[in-house]
Amino acid sequence: MVKALKNRIDIFKEIFSKEGIDGFLIASERNIFYFTEASGANFLFIPAKGDCKVYVYGVNYDAVKVEAKNCQIELIERGEKPEKKIVQQVEKHKIKVLGFDSLLAQTFITLKRALRGKAKLKPKNELVWNLRKIKDDKELSLMRKAAEITSEGMKTAYEVLKAGMREYEVAAEIEYAMRKAGSWSLAFDTIVASGPRSAYPHGWCTDRKIRKGELVVVDIGAVYQNYRADMTRTLVAGKPTEKQLKIFNVVREAQEKAFRKVRAGRKARTVDRVARKVIEDAGFGEYFVHGTGHGIGLETHEPPTLNSQSKDKLEARNVVTVEPGIYITGFGGIRIEDTVLVMEKGAERLTKGPYTLTLG
Amino acid sequence: MVKALKNRIDIFKEIFSKEGIDGFLIASERNIFYFTEASGANFLFIPAKGDCKVYVYGVNYDAVKVEAKNCQIELIERGEKPEKKIVQQVEKHKIKVLGFDSLLAQTFITLKRALRGKAKLKPKNELVWNLRKIKDDKELSLMRKAAEITSEGMKTAYEVLKAGMREYEVAAEIEYAMRKAGSWSLAFDTIVASGPRSAYPHGWCTDRKIRKGELVVVDIGAVYQNYRADMTRTLVAGKPTEKQLKIFNVVREAQEKAFRKVRAGRKARTVDRVARKVIEDAGFGEYFVHGTGHGIGLETHEPPTLNSQSKDKLEARNVVTVEPGIYITGFGGIRIEDTVLVMEKGAERLTKGPYTLTLG
Repeated sequence: MVKALKNRIDIFKEIFSKEGIDGFLIASERNIFYFTEASGANFLFIPAKGDCKVYVYGVNYDAVKVEAKNCQIELIERGEKPEKKIVQQVEKHKIKVLGFDSLLAQTFITLKRALRGKAKLKPKNELVWNLRKIKDDKELSLMRKAAEITSEGMKTAYEVLKAGMREYEVAAEIEYAMRKAGSWSLAFDTIVASGPRSAYPHGWCTDRKIRKGELVVVDIGAVYQNYRADMTRTLVAGKPTEKQLKIFNVVREAQEKAFRKVRAGRKARTVDRVARKVIEDAGFGEYFVHGTGHGIGLETHEPPTLNSQSKDKLEARNVVTVEPGIYITGFGGIRIEDTVLVMEKGAERLTKGPYTLTLG
Repeated sequence: MVKALKNRIDIFKEIFSKEGIDGFLIASERNIFYFTEASGANFLFIPAKGDCKVYVYGVNYDAVKVEAKNCQIELIERGEKPEKKIVQQVEKHKIKVLGFDSLLAQTFITLKRALRGKAKLKPKNELVWNLRKIKDDKELSLMRKAAEITSEGMKTAYEVLKAGMREYEVAAEIEYAMRKAGSWSLAFDTIVASGPRSAYPHGWCTDRKIRKGELVVVDIGAVYQNYRADMTRTLVAGKPTEKQLKIFNVVREAQEKAFRKVRAGRKARTVDRVARKVIEDAGFGEYFVHGTGHGIGLETHEPPTLNSQSKDKLEARNVVTVEPGIYITGFGGIRIEDTVLVMEKGAERLTKGPYTLTLG
């Protein structure tokens, strides 16, 4: 792996001149972590030539001093204006075009004003994503572990779910199992959405009591050393109805066919098309109200995007979700999702577990 | 309560003319929830006169249709450009100055261009915060419940923590207890930071094994119906050393004195000053590396801010944290935190539990 020999900042700098920039301001905490391995820093300044600097407030200064690699570390004193430090760096390195990843509008306005006559600000977030979406060996091993823990959580869902439990009680057992299996936190708020609520793809968790025969969408994600996984199964507490089983089989087929389409070089929207066609052909097209998947890594939602509008092309070492679903108001929803590694000649499911509506 | 009679959008509109705006774009999901009770929407358009509209992608359309109050609901089709819809509303309502809460720089740039010659964009996030930081009766009752659940989690920390456990194993028990007590999710990633890691205020959770006699900072928060609490205690698995006890007592005194200073009309920075003075007088000033507290509600970190630079004045019905700490590299850290309701003549701790370094 080239990435193991050169550090990520050096690799990033190599594209600056082609992109017409001579410096880059990283403000997203996850991006700073990606480049430096430090959490809780406020921004990272990367000049085309010369040393990088990470800036951090006192609250995280000691932690960043221990963690940060490949950069100098500077404290932001309470009351100091961070944009002054950025202007200093722009002047020191004689930067004319400063790329940035993501800023809030107010910060952008302030900074643009402070840099007037000195440097131009160019939004170039996609350049960081181009690196981040290709996972290196270390990242993949952490994501495998996160996926393993997540699969353990889903196994628990099948074991514990019973009619009469409240949604948050089911979440309690799943999250406990993931923690005991080594999860460092949650990739997102656990979804246990039952009955009519299962028709809301982002239904989260309430104190609703699950009734016999209702659909329950369980969507969970563990985190291992900052890397995430994402997995959904839909369960029924009791005997599924014919309609539930029929729709389940459609979603199952859509997920399987879409998964088989995943490989390096494939247009992301083709994977979406394949899943959508299965669902449309079965007459449920209007009820598949979201895209087929998204990249995942240090964040739960990353590029590439697998939907009908996507311009992304899948590459080896992308990690993406494949998660078609059918959601019918009143009836409920069914979604099946795995986290999947894109390879040269196919794909590998990182989350693993049976596909069945019925319980253990 | 006036707030119970008028809806929040009507109250918000009343300040428009004084602020020189005739429309407002809400893009923060929490702000949209605050005004409409709907989760997962993308933006909310509030004209000075006429009906509000909330815009949402298909994935959350059905949920928003059920939840949203006091506004019309419009679907954003996949591939549609949201800024076009905003421009339409600006034209329809003949808006000249459009306030907004928070936008990413790229969205701001796109929107500014689309509105050229039509309307000006003004960042006015503080206007929403001015409302949100005063909690109404319903909000307070949900925050009391969140604080109660959080206190339950802390009780569990004291019960289960033992030398030899890994940090994430302690988190497992705490989170499980909060879930069983009715928590809908986590306000933030649980912090269980032990030994030298306790010196990192945002130390999160790792697989580190806790050793006998080490400091363990436990910082947790439950969520009840979207409202949050935040609470920290510092524990020692075993018999505390004299130095640990001495520093603990300083932090304890700082927290108590700061808490007693909290009341409506008080400058937020005075509360910080009081906590800081106790710690400075004991000779640990340089080790108190963060502010004394922050507002909390639908988000974990909200205005008002209780630090030395703050210009905020506390008001009745603010809910804030009071959380001084001392962090010494190598030795470790001690923080004590409660979530506190600001009242006309004092304050009330919403999170409750003993202050002690020792277990059980």
